[in-house]
Amino acid sequence: MNTKQGLNVAIVGATGAVGVQMLKMLEGSSLPISQLKLLASKRSAGKTQTFKDQSIIVEEAKPAAFEGVDIALFSAGGAVSKQLAPEAVKRGAVVIDNTSAFRMDPEVPLVVPEVNPEALREHKGIIANPNCSTIQMVVALEPLRRKHGLNRVIVSTYQAVSGAGHSAIEELKQQTEAVLNGQEPKTEKFPYPIAFNAIPQIDTFQDNRYTFEEMKMINETKKIMAFPELRVAATCVRLPVAVGHAESVYVELDQEVGVEDALALLADSPGVTVVDDPANLGYPMPMDAAGKKDVFVGRVRKDPDEKKGLHLWIVSDNLLKGAAWNSVQIAETLVQLKIITI
Amino acid sequence: MNTKQGLNVAIVGATGAVGVQMLKMLEGSSLPISQLKLLASKRSAGKTQTFKDQSIIVEEAKPAAFEGVDIALFSAGGAVSKQLAPEAVKRGAVVIDNTSAFRMDPEVPLVVPEVNPEALREHKGIIANPNCSTIQMVVALEPLRRKHGLNRVIVSTYQAVSGAGHSAIEELKQQTEAVLNGQEPKTEKFPYPIAFNAIPQIDTFQDNRYTFEEMKMINETKKIMAFPELRVAATCVRLPVAVGHAESVYVELDQEVGVEDALALLADSPGVTVVDDPANLGYPMPMDAAGKKDVFVGRVRKDPDEKKGLHLWIVSDNLLKGAAWNSVQIAETLVQLKIITI
Repeated sequence: MNTKQGLNVAIVGATGAVGVQMLKMLEGSSLPISQLKLLASKRSAGKTQTFKDQSIIVEEAKPAAFEGVDIALFSAGGAVSKQLAPEAVKRGAVVIDNTSAFRMDPEVPLVVPEVNPEALREHKGIIANPNCSTIQMVVALEPLRRKHGLNRVIVSTYQAVSGAGHSAIEELKQQTEAVLNGQEPKTEKFPYPIAFNAIPQIDTFQDNRYTFEEMKMINETKKIMAFPELRVAATCVRLPVAVGHAESVYVELDQEVGVEDALALLADSPGVTVVDDPANLGYPMPMDAAGKKDVFVGRVRKDPDEKKGLHLWIVSDNLLKGAAWNSVQIAETLVQLKIITI
Repeated sequence: MNTKQGLNVAIVGATGAVGVQMLKMLEGSSLPISQLKLLASKRSAGKTQTFKDQSIIVEEAKPAAFEGVDIALFSAGGAVSKQLAPEAVKRGAVVIDNTSAFRMDPEVPLVVPEVNPEALREHKGIIANPNCSTIQMVVALEPLRRKHGLNRVIVSTYQAVSGAGHSAIEELKQQTEAVLNGQEPKTEKFPYPIAFNAIPQIDTFQDNRYTFEEMKMINETKKIMAFPELRVAATCVRLPVAVGHAESVYVELDQEVGVEDALALLADSPGVTVVDDPANLGYPMPMDAAGKKDVFVGRVRKDPDEKKGLHLWIVSDNLLKGAAWNSVQIAETLVQLKIITI
């Protein structure tokens, strides 16, 4: 590929909630992009989107569209990834897939660049972008684990609707208007009204009574951190918030760590911004994290009884670090590590 | 008091969010009420409220108003309770106080009738009604503790705004309308906008970096359960929900318990309704709990790693079991146990 001027990049699902953010993240990226292809379903083909002041027509995603593509960012649902990712790889592309289709495939690296960039070297064409809630958690856990050892995680999430796409944001808005006007809210995306409610179910129930979202957090955390013996439990809850996932996380370390030491370590860690100033009511919130790339950590405090236990409150934009930004970061890391050469 | 026909009951803070619910709960109660006095601030005096088709004029809460009162239910803020509860007691009333003013006073029983009704026998005039989040949690924990032993609790809350009063519900509504109309939301009750957001702060920060709400959950749980050595940690979060608190609770028992056994035990426990049917997407939610007296428990599952660990999702109406209903239940229990005779 040494004769080329730059990278030929494609976004699959370019008109979706995450796809639109992938476009924005690519605009701000250091990647040398010579061509950007926007792919979507037949229904969205023909629409135009703007990339660096250039108007690009959205094309239908089909196998032939991947000819000449170097990097394909997929975020059009698991079924599309299962069908088209192998086609893209066959045509020479490296696929960065934002769905859960390949994440637990032992042949597929599952990567958060701040945590396990070296796993990218093992890729066989497809690289998986982890679940949104998992990404923001491991970014905060990895520095604690490296310095102090980690043996247990108990997380309860507070998740925004946008993880379920544009239409979910619209549903929250319409339901909210309906409730304010004394009308019955209509449900489509979610099993129950989400406006002014909290739904303790994200994705489908598994046989063990955990939801698939909870199992993603449990299994993906272990895979990304290459830490199968880590004890992880998760409870995932959907909230009437448009953008920004929050997490109440309890961790048990191998050593006792003071709050000030933990805060200093986190503040020094890549991708983390500490917002933890009780005296001035400083802590992360979805409204502040929305639109930002970092993982925000606050409310750090010691467990009242367990000396090696810490509680953290972790917030990030689920469409950015939870999806689009992490995918683009993976692409940048592929170039930085010379796994893809230009 | 044997010559009387019934009880002379007073509500202090009768026009507030909890006071209004106290009136409703008294309407449905078995208490033999011969007279109901509605007391509030000077500002609210002169308003009328209806009790069993009878119109009652709200009077100003002042010491003399408690003459002849047998039971006074207080919910007008800690300052009012500190000032007037002793005055009510001096005049012969038993005070059931819904504020945090006396809860940790060793002379004052802190009571959830399903958990520690016998503590009422020790009262010296004032009985404290616990914090809303604490009440619903201990109702679910106590049966597990009695049968299987309990040694650890880690809770993350999902709390409705109505805990902060009528004006907080109004603020949520107005902020929501503002955001939907693209306007800047105005904040008064809460430090940041709560509409479409989650705020990890309820009540003020303490020196140990926990909020007062979190310390209430920790300390009150131990006091109600008479279990000072129980390990409890809490993270309390405010949500854009009007009514109904939810809690993601991890418990460590002294024995391994199967999910079916735990569900059967909970279903058999006073004040608990189990809603736990993953196959039919059955679980408790704030929208379903609002207006009901029970504590709803679901999403019961075993910790993936800790054999003695269970995860629960506990939801209840914070104005009813969390406040008004628990207070009225205390009054009923005082009569049932003949601590107050008519």
